[in-house]
Amino acid sequence: MRIAQVAPLFERVPPVTYGGTERVVAYLADALVELGHDVTLFASGDSRTSARLVSAARCSLRLDTTCRDTMAPQIHELELVSRLAHRFDVIHFHTGFLHLPLTRYLEAPSVTTMHGRLDMDELSPLMKDFSDVPLVSISDHQRRPYPHQRWCATVYHGLPSRLLPYNASPDRYVAFVGRISPEKRLDRAIEIARRAGMELRVAAKIDAADREYFQAEIAGLMTQPHVTYLGEIGEAEKAELLGGARALLFPIDWPEPFGMVVIEALSCGTPVLAWPGGSVPELLEPDVTGWIVDSIDGAVEALRRVDAIDRAACRAAFEQRFTADRMARDYVAVYKRLQDCSRPGLEARTA
Amino acid sequence: MRIAQVAPLFERVPPVTYGGTERVVAYLADALVELGHDVTLFASGDSRTSARLVSAARCSLRLDTTCRDTMAPQIHELELVSRLAHRFDVIHFHTGFLHLPLTRYLEAPSVTTMHGRLDMDELSPLMKDFSDVPLVSISDHQRRPYPHQRWCATVYHGLPSRLLPYNASPDRYVAFVGRISPEKRLDRAIEIARRAGMELRVAAKIDAADREYFQAEIAGLMTQPHVTYLGEIGEAEKAELLGGARALLFPIDWPEPFGMVVIEALSCGTPVLAWPGGSVPELLEPDVTGWIVDSIDGAVEALRRVDAIDRAACRAAFEQRFTADRMARDYVAVYKRLQDCSRPGLEARTA
Repeated sequence: MRIAQVAPLFERVPPVTYGGTERVVAYLADALVELGHDVTLFASGDSRTSARLVSAARCSLRLDTTCRDTMAPQIHELELVSRLAHRFDVIHFHTGFLHLPLTRYLEAPSVTTMHGRLDMDELSPLMKDFSDVPLVSISDHQRRPYPHQRWCATVYHGLPSRLLPYNASPDRYVAFVGRISPEKRLDRAIEIARRAGMELRVAAKIDAADREYFQAEIAGLMTQPHVTYLGEIGEAEKAELLGGARALLFPIDWPEPFGMVVIEALSCGTPVLAWPGGSVPELLEPDVTGWIVDSIDGAVEALRRVDAIDRAACRAAFEQRFTADRMARDYVAVYKRLQDCSRPGLEARTA
Repeated sequence: MRIAQVAPLFERVPPVTYGGTERVVAYLADALVELGHDVTLFASGDSRTSARLVSAARCSLRLDTTCRDTMAPQIHELELVSRLAHRFDVIHFHTGFLHLPLTRYLEAPSVTTMHGRLDMDELSPLMKDFSDVPLVSISDHQRRPYPHQRWCATVYHGLPSRLLPYNASPDRYVAFVGRISPEKRLDRAIEIARRAGMELRVAAKIDAADREYFQAEIAGLMTQPHVTYLGEIGEAEKAELLGGARALLFPIDWPEPFGMVVIEALSCGTPVLAWPGGSVPELLEPDVTGWIVDSIDGAVEALRRVDAIDRAACRAAFEQRFTADRMARDYVAVYKRLQDCSRPGLEARTA
């Protein structure tokens, strides 16, 4: 198939460090090429991909300090897509809501993956407006607030299977990976590790918006001897950190629409100790790939049973459910259904 | 004519305090109604207008602290416009670039007023994309970086003529009104007033982004005895402040695309002492409605001649060039030309 992927421009594809959506688009585009499809990626010009790259901005907006109006390149990207639309069998958007009004006029069927949380009142008028637009959710939980959209599928994110290798013999520590923000609850992770008597290694980014929270609530806790702070880390260090961990601590306090780090841990064979927010119950199988708890006591108790987890089973679950190859195949199935629906003949018959 | 005005949603129309674009849209919509047109205003639901209001958000986004995704209501607004487009003779956008891809598909001719500065490299691809889209500039200077767009006209902003009444007998002070930011150069205004031996009254907003600049560069200067800081003020206080001023100081250091406060001062009969950035030479007539200088020395020298200015002539210039009524008539002329161009018969003939 001739497939267009339309990525946000804030990070390059894949991002240098953080940037969930752009990373998923990178893996998806490469996996679709691997499956033999003709893939065009609309993204920032510094992106790296095995697909054909159409640059919609010189470099990613987060790195381009000279760009004062970040809307301009985003609108330019939409215009590029619009002009080239007739060349594709399907156009797959990852750009939030920005392109939705345009989708009705494109000369190709399109589908949009919703990458963010949807449980916000302000989305209601918009979701009503676009109830006819084909959408993909990244977990079943994510789509709950708007069950009446035109959901084509839930497609879980996936990772290249060799990205984060299996490690059968971990170290003694537990890990926390993510942003330091109130909803990620690093404070819980620190307390769990302390009570379990284990070292906690923290790889985390602090956004400007969260700096105040960090100073007030977290910085003091980080000075405890069992906590090691590694700062923001790259992909290579992530493999080492997650692979060496006894368990990943994921004590979230919000409806996480997916949770990439959960499948990153599983890729390494590392089980995940999580609170049951958002997608978590869909991603983890209790006592097989991790534990779902709702208290510090429960978490400490679970960590006592960590040796009962078979790390090979965690990796097997990853290979079955969370590879980029599986993700790409799922999306191709969505694209084919869209193509079938949009054939004029069929449309007339089903109308 | 059946005219749609599409306002940004960040401030209500008109804004409670600051918000240049929303304020102009408010004056324009009311003036068009006054001229007998059938006007529909797309804006936040807390807007106040004599036009028919279509609410695209419960309240203005700046005031709605519960709204985490401000893009959603903006896209909803575009969808509302798109659905109702067939009801209008012309659709007038004030929403930046966001709607540009959509304008090609609307069932009515549209025109977009560019409200911001355009001298930015990142706009180049976008401006090329949309070189066929009808635009209005708010000064001739503003459009200089992109002379090859489809510019329909320069339409200067206007104010309701009774909004800021003429004051023949001002006080002794000079005034500064605007944001406290590096490009507005409050530091220059403070130094000019000091050297001229006059009181400076400052009505200014400090954006979060400018707080560091304020602390480092401005706060220290503000403690001088000749400076009075009034904070952010409303419309009523603005009439009093500007009307009572000997002169408005406008020592800008950037290509100001219009400069609303310049015509606000003229409405009161108050001359303007300005640096020659952006639109300034188009708005002021030296020694009649103010002075254009490029040094502190020149500014102090000009203030010595302040009594030679006829305040009635400043007001007369305002009435002739900068009322909302004049702005509305200028836009109606633009709308009529668009309507003529978009009649299918004519298009066929000129094609």
